[in-house]
Amino acid sequence: MPEKNILIAGLGLIGGSLARTIKSGHPDYHVAAYNRSQAPRYFAIQERIVDEVSDDFDALAVKADVIILNFPVQLSIQFLKTLATLPLKDNVLISDSGSTKLEIVTAAEEIFKGKAIRFIGGHPMAGSHKSGVIASDELLFENAYYILTTSALSQPADFEELKGVLVNTRAKFIELTAKEHDAMTAVTSHFPHVVAASLVDNAHDFAAIMPFTENLAAGGFRDMTRIAESSPDMWTEILMSNPDNIVYQIDQFSQKLADVKQLMLQRQSAEIWDFFDNARKLRAQMPIHKGAMENFYDLFISVPDKSDVIHEVLGYFAGHDLSIINIKINETRVEINGVLQITFKTENDQATAKRLILENSSYDVYQ
Amino acid sequence: MPEKNILIAGLGLIGGSLARTIKSGHPDYHVAAYNRSQAPRYFAIQERIVDEVSDDFDALAVKADVIILNFPVQLSIQFLKTLATLPLKDNVLISDSGSTKLEIVTAAEEIFKGKAIRFIGGHPMAGSHKSGVIASDELLFENAYYILTTSALSQPADFEELKGVLVNTRAKFIELTAKEHDAMTAVTSHFPHVVAASLVDNAHDFAAIMPFTENLAAGGFRDMTRIAESSPDMWTEILMSNPDNIVYQIDQFSQKLADVKQLMLQRQSAEIWDFFDNARKLRAQMPIHKGAMENFYDLFISVPDKSDVIHEVLGYFAGHDLSIINIKINETRVEINGVLQITFKTENDQATAKRLILENSSYDVYQ
Repeated sequence: MPEKNILIAGLGLIGGSLARTIKSGHPDYHVAAYNRSQAPRYFAIQERIVDEVSDDFDALAVKADVIILNFPVQLSIQFLKTLATLPLKDNVLISDSGSTKLEIVTAAEEIFKGKAIRFIGGHPMAGSHKSGVIASDELLFENAYYILTTSALSQPADFEELKGVLVNTRAKFIELTAKEHDAMTAVTSHFPHVVAASLVDNAHDFAAIMPFTENLAAGGFRDMTRIAESSPDMWTEILMSNPDNIVYQIDQFSQKLADVKQLMLQRQSAEIWDFFDNARKLRAQMPIHKGAMENFYDLFISVPDKSDVIHEVLGYFAGHDLSIINIKINETRVEINGVLQITFKTENDQATAKRLILENSSYDVYQ
Repeated sequence: MPEKNILIAGLGLIGGSLARTIKSGHPDYHVAAYNRSQAPRYFAIQERIVDEVSDDFDALAVKADVIILNFPVQLSIQFLKTLATLPLKDNVLISDSGSTKLEIVTAAEEIFKGKAIRFIGGHPMAGSHKSGVIASDELLFENAYYILTTSALSQPADFEELKGVLVNTRAKFIELTAKEHDAMTAVTSHFPHVVAASLVDNAHDFAAIMPFTENLAAGGFRDMTRIAESSPDMWTEILMSNPDNIVYQIDQFSQKLADVKQLMLQRQSAEIWDFFDNARKLRAQMPIHKGAMENFYDLFISVPDKSDVIHEVLGYFAGHDLSIINIKINETRVEINGVLQITFKTENDQATAKRLILENSSYDVYQ
């Protein structure tokens, strides 16, 4: 008899990765997965990511001690309604992994009112350009923020229980209200997506006047609009699920643009300089530079500017099975030397690589 | 007696790189450089980037057949005024490399009216995170757009002459009016800088309400605000030099945000989906994907997902002096295979690398 029965509902990148970490952290748990389509179920069972798969959600749900829903928010809310009609185990613990939290937490409070059901909204803030259970990864959540939302449907002990189940995600768990979560992600993620899409739209409009415009879109423009190619399904769902916060950001941001416009119309160069200097300083101070959201480990190596230096340095790693994510020559320093940045998936590999470089070369290594 | 006397005024990244390409394209030319401070002059003469250096602008100017000013716009205009007072050679050809064009071209037309002086505003649209003559590079402009501005101060033959001097930049020369240049760069570069700085400012404001906000700034937000750390001096100068176009973009963009706000307030999900889907399609169609602005050459190699694959592929290049700019494992495909992206500085190295990979492995290679 396993200690807990876990149900992962929705076998995509997030569901698959959660299943992997739960199983590896708790080999004695029984991890089952629901998925409507067959291919992810087949892959998950073949790869032993889970112990059991089915397209019968109800049958798996009634056996579960912990249920994690990995769907778009509206679909998750439909599953909450289904769950409320089933003879679930007493005090079953239900969570989700959606991008917005207030809508589902509010729905859960209403749907589960008076029932012996515990609910904690969750948002593991990790992702990959890969998608699907085929790309699922036990290390996906390592060092990522994993937001858990406080509500009337859970007590402090419930958070400890859920974090225990998810211990092997090695994520940084943060407890927030659903309102706080949605307000902050509107600033850092949802509204910036609207900006990126609007920048593309805007450049395209102007190209109707001067067609060569799109040829000049590069560099900063490229970086600022990359996320405009994200899934319209996902982002429509997010905007519909968090409209008040995003509208507030539109208002705040539009006022900022109006302020800059006034400075320009009045040719207030000192104030414009302050605006740019302030932004530069603020960004330099943001935790963004610590890469807190990245589950990766960097080494920075001062190297001479020669074309085979990457190959030379990698040669030092031969025979050690190091998980290299990325290699890049940075040109951020004024000196004639370049900086080779190598990104590792684990802290351990980072340490091994540092030792090998120091043993085999006279290059300076920073991390 | 050299065929032409060239004066490069301002020995930074751009001036130094222009000097290198002119000298390598025309070994018989005499290339002199003016710079106020001593260190760049010393470096340029030691490295044989130029034939002569001086801090006496006037003395070099009167000997020159071609003068290229590499300063911020306002300073370049001061030098134009100085030039108008000097006994220059008849029909001297003057150009610049500033980020905006209408202000300097208008000034030149006024300053040089009735004089035997030809002027063509220039903007080589290339750069590096490195700065200074020490980072100057003969290949900096390769395949980059190099805008030349038409005006009353030059004839078609003058453009051919200037392009001849600059032939070894291997840039893509584009003739535009100064107005066109400033309108288009407002869309693709100047206004996006205002947006990036405003996004940082906005997130910082909100952090006064919810301090954890800045911790959640990552991913898309990071990419969208990277240029907010650019030089406030340079960007203040650009805003002051191109206010009308940037104000126009602020108005256009604010209207777009207002439209999205209305869609959200009215919960028009189908229209929001169209907004995102349209932006996604537009960006996918932009020349941005062709890397037209990058003077780099990519190879994409389908590789198995194993940690030593980068080292293995680089091994095939051993002994060939290939100029690798960047190596990255992309995770953009759904398949289990990864895509190794290797960026080369020259088309030649790209071709050699492709041949070596096809000879030594069974990997698919795309470019």
